[in-house]
Amino acid sequence: MINQYTMVPLHIDGDEPGALLERRSFLAAALKAAGAAALLALPGKGLTTDLHPPETTYTVQEIIDLILKEIPGAPFAHTVDTIKSGNAGQKVTGIVTTMFATIKVIEDAAGMNANFIIAHEPTFYNHEDDIHWVLHNEVLKKKQDLLQQHQIAIWRFHDYWHSHLPDGIGYGVLKMAGWLPYYQPDKKMVQLPPLSLKELLLQLKKNLAINHMRVIGDPDQICERIALLPGAAGGQRQILLAENEKPDVLIVGEVHEWETAEYIRDARQLGSKISLIVLGHGVSEEPGMAWLVEWLGPKLPGLPINHLASGDPFIWA
Amino acid sequence: MINQYTMVPLHIDGDEPGALLERRSFLAAALKAAGAAALLALPGKGLTTDLHPPETTYTVQEIIDLILKEIPGAPFAHTVDTIKSGNAGQKVTGIVTTMFATIKVIEDAAGMNANFIIAHEPTFYNHEDDIHWVLHNEVLKKKQDLLQQHQIAIWRFHDYWHSHLPDGIGYGVLKMAGWLPYYQPDKKMVQLPPLSLKELLLQLKKNLAINHMRVIGDPDQICERIALLPGAAGGQRQILLAENEKPDVLIVGEVHEWETAEYIRDARQLGSKISLIVLGHGVSEEPGMAWLVEWLGPKLPGLPINHLASGDPFIWA
Repeated sequence: MINQYTMVPLHIDGDEPGALLERRSFLAAALKAAGAAALLALPGKGLTTDLHPPETTYTVQEIIDLILKEIPGAPFAHTVDTIKSGNAGQKVTGIVTTMFATIKVIEDAAGMNANFIIAHEPTFYNHEDDIHWVLHNEVLKKKQDLLQQHQIAIWRFHDYWHSHLPDGIGYGVLKMAGWLPYYQPDKKMVQLPPLSLKELLLQLKKNLAINHMRVIGDPDQICERIALLPGAAGGQRQILLAENEKPDVLIVGEVHEWETAEYIRDARQLGSKISLIVLGHGVSEEPGMAWLVEWLGPKLPGLPINHLASGDPFIWA
Repeated sequence: MINQYTMVPLHIDGDEPGALLERRSFLAAALKAAGAAALLALPGKGLTTDLHPPETTYTVQEIIDLILKEIPGAPFAHTVDTIKSGNAGQKVTGIVTTMFATIKVIEDAAGMNANFIIAHEPTFYNHEDDIHWVLHNEVLKKKQDLLQQHQIAIWRFHDYWHSHLPDGIGYGVLKMAGWLPYYQPDKKMVQLPPLSLKELLLQLKKNLAINHMRVIGDPDQICERIALLPGAAGGQRQILLAENEKPDVLIVGEVHEWETAEYIRDARQLGSKISLIVLGHGVSEEPGMAWLVEWLGPKLPGLPINHLASGDPFIWA
């Protein structure tokens, strides 16, 4: 699998344990700050030059640079975290964070007067965002036109967010799942108070706002050691973690069915108790892009920053 | 996606149109033939040398060679269709065809005294069946031990079966779906009598014996032009077919969610009517391995050959 996912240790400092991630909008606070800034910025009011005027002074590149200062080893020589639309010098009117910059997310961002989307996953339907991956792709062309029309910049924040300490996605998921008290940075497993697989599924559905999941396992089986790999880490990493750690449950976003799903099915038919929960790719990592609002907001005073969940693309029939 | 799938023209000659694929067991007929052969083979009965004694005289390699004679361009220089377990010279007591040689399929084959499994997909959880893909894989080791214990040979029949004319998987699916009358070899689309997406889902569930599907689309929308790509063809092929043919519905086995699912979601949000049905990888191609019994049986008189469906690994929660 090409989608690189690195589970780095989560250092949990000063965060309220066990709370659900509140999808808190910074819009109200941001507007207040922007209003105050507008007053300060009135001509002739003697605005000091070292005060960063908040309303229109961040460019896309300045925001990216500000983020990269927090990422160990950044900038990376090779990364998919590039600007997919718009340009680096563009003045940012507002930020939307999301998993996928779908047509709806783009339109909603434009409607909020936010012209910078920070998306965790590709914009153009392949990991490298190669716009020639499928030649004469009319859907892709229309998406580019829409982005051009609204003058919206998109930056992918994937490799860097996973490389943050703690992993921005992993931390967001643990927080929203209510599992921060059960995670220890030096352990690869989340150690939960024992509960049945059925109870675990209900808890995940409620806390992560997921309607449907695919599962291999016995609903009545008791679980406590949880391996959490949101996103599409690929069969090799998923199976390696299962083999090394022997968790009760492996929770992932997406699988190759011929890899991890068949491995788990065989393991169980051979007598292992390991279960698999497939959350869905987007919904499994969305909490990490919601947490980005909390993480980034205070670094950009006065700039509206909101999370728009791109949501599950599927209906289940 | 590494799983090569080639949709080759289906030449439909002399097959009863529209019939559901009857999962006909050749066991009864085969046992009769084997009994007759046993009589013929009694010592001193003067068995003629040009009569191929049916009960134990096929080796794994002889059966593979017999199959490859029917595949254009075979043998291929590069193919994943290799022997995964057992050996080429092994005498075959019976054949089981399946999608995945799961632990249960192996045990059931052993219980039927069939020592040759022809599987469409990998045995060891990766496309190349590299047994070192995940080091110290205990599940894989136990599977090898079980295969050794029962002296079972496994051969993968993937690239060659897709290269058969007609594509063995595609033909099996069309047959079981009841769509042979609606397929024309020179067209890439299946042209169905108009029906709603909801009706199409019910028809697929019933005819292909599938319990659950993931869908992007409007259940009430009328469909007639169907793009059928069972298995995991990869986003590039799936999207290319969608772009080139503009079907009402794209039906696949498995997707990368960040590729085809997001492409379809965006296409619809841009006003396209295209829908996506994700059947599940195994169940989407299983009919092609069921059809293999009908195709191969008459070529191996006297040898028991049966299909065992490996089935959907998931429960849906």
